[in-house]
Amino acid sequence: MDSSSIHRWHNMVTLVTGGAGFVGSHLVDCLIENGHKVRIFDNMSSGRISFLSHHGDLIDIIEGDLLDLNAVKKAMEGVDLVFHLAANPDIRLGTEITDTDLKQGTVATYNVLEAMRVNGVRKIAFASSSVVYGEAKQMPTPENYGPLFPISLYGASKLGSEALITSWVGTFDLQAWIFRFANIVGARGTHGVIFDFIHKLHRDKSTLEVLGNGRQEKSYMEVVDCAKAMLHVVNNTNEPINCYNLGTHDTCSVRRIAEIVLEETKCQDANIEYTGGDRGWAGDVPKSMLDPQRLFDLKFTPNFSSEDAIRHTARCLVNEIGQP
Amino acid sequence: MDSSSIHRWHNMVTLVTGGAGFVGSHLVDCLIENGHKVRIFDNMSSGRISFLSHHGDLIDIIEGDLLDLNAVKKAMEGVDLVFHLAANPDIRLGTEITDTDLKQGTVATYNVLEAMRVNGVRKIAFASSSVVYGEAKQMPTPENYGPLFPISLYGASKLGSEALITSWVGTFDLQAWIFRFANIVGARGTHGVIFDFIHKLHRDKSTLEVLGNGRQEKSYMEVVDCAKAMLHVVNNTNEPINCYNLGTHDTCSVRRIAEIVLEETKCQDANIEYTGGDRGWAGDVPKSMLDPQRLFDLKFTPNFSSEDAIRHTARCLVNEIGQP
Repeated sequence: MDSSSIHRWHNMVTLVTGGAGFVGSHLVDCLIENGHKVRIFDNMSSGRISFLSHHGDLIDIIEGDLLDLNAVKKAMEGVDLVFHLAANPDIRLGTEITDTDLKQGTVATYNVLEAMRVNGVRKIAFASSSVVYGEAKQMPTPENYGPLFPISLYGASKLGSEALITSWVGTFDLQAWIFRFANIVGARGTHGVIFDFIHKLHRDKSTLEVLGNGRQEKSYMEVVDCAKAMLHVVNNTNEPINCYNLGTHDTCSVRRIAEIVLEETKCQDANIEYTGGDRGWAGDVPKSMLDPQRLFDLKFTPNFSSEDAIRHTARCLVNEIGQP
Repeated sequence: MDSSSIHRWHNMVTLVTGGAGFVGSHLVDCLIENGHKVRIFDNMSSGRISFLSHHGDLIDIIEGDLLDLNAVKKAMEGVDLVFHLAANPDIRLGTEITDTDLKQGTVATYNVLEAMRVNGVRKIAFASSSVVYGEAKQMPTPENYGPLFPISLYGASKLGSEALITSWVGTFDLQAWIFRFANIVGARGTHGVIFDFIHKLHRDKSTLEVLGNGRQEKSYMEVVDCAKAMLHVVNNTNEPINCYNLGTHDTCSVRRIAEIVLEETKCQDANIEYTGGDRGWAGDVPKSMLDPQRLFDLKFTPNFSSEDAIRHTARCLVNEIGQP
């Protein structure tokens, strides 16, 4: 980050929804480092104060629910820039209670936008996802890929949120950054495949159950890379709508993730048992690879490849959760 | 429609949401003609019983609100196929109360899908819109165009609904037809530019106010063509997701529409006054033209071009509303 962007955000108030969560807390670290005044709005469903406590009084934390529009309006007073990261963090919950993603995703995004409108807040950056592409026929998948047919309820909520955001740009003159995340992994992870594998090994060191046939293959991005990339794009683009894939140039299979986790947990003797089928759950996209070229064209390079990000994450999470 | 498709739907129950409305009532005419048992779910906000009364006892009409999930679940019992057409009919309302489209569009679609899931109903046809394409850079715009950045709140609700539908296909094994409508015009119209022009002339025959500079240019499809096209595609395609633009091969400007309406209302002496600007209202797409080639490839040809559809509609509506 150059000094001009630090100057640009000095004393400007940046609200981070989901700021106590996995990606949010790493973004807050970056924002503080770059001179933003940070306010956090989080319902603490998966966020943790301990992810933020190292900032002391430098940040304001509001515990609140995005479905409470009045609370969101109040939190939005005096804000210059919003990073809207809050969402149901577990893509797989969607098939049990079917309105979780609709509410925590699309309706929550509506409330954020409406609160921005009534408070005259004009800039929003949004954490969308590669799952908006559904089972894309083109890989790596560029930002202008169509048609967009997401196959998970989580994906539907992300595309529904993107659409609300672009309509607010068109109707109420907002400026937006839409980030379509690869699978984000790293320290402070509270869900996802690596997290699950380590917890499974804590319960039984002899066997690792893997959902699907292990051949699912996706791109992974390390969470600090992701946070830095968001800030880099916001600082270096200025269209009404700026839509960027955030990912790496490669992929990693679930089979390979299982092997890496067994190595890092020193459980190499465990049997890997595959539940079978080409996807981990209904709505799982078996293969996804984002085209990150537009991000790279802005002179951003991630520190970690997919496989390096997986290994780094396994080490961080073993350190946080404990050796099985 | 060939006899095999009549046979196919004989005694099968087809639910039409918004079936008492403008497009819905014409679709019901087609469905009855093709052997469907028709059930209608409509809140009668813009629907009218008079649009359906010629069917007598052949149809079941349920007056209800799609936001009442229990009512939708009940209406869904025993249904084989759903045409989900209900929506806030006026794209321009969105800037006054900002949650109308979210509720009447996205949330209502969720309720339809959830009611289908719990009742084991597996087929849905959905009335989406060309506005999901936003200000497309490619015209005519094909179904696989991206990125999808709708600029109106109505457009956001349509894309949000499409996303919910494809996620239900991916997660709960539904089959879906998504129809992206051009501007649909014709008899029984209850809103839109021709309807507005005739009503304005009723108030003042000497002047016709036109929103924008009159150079907005869009494709128009006659409503009976639209209804027949939907049924034709449902009868002739069988993918899990079948997404089709419904439109004509040409466009008509708002200036030309004004001229045609003045001719058909015999108000040729009226002054046309343009409010100016390249769009009619915030969120208006100044130019849109769908690529209807995939529809035409299924051997469907609309009876009316855009301009013919406009003139036909002006005649029908003058007949319904009265000569100014």
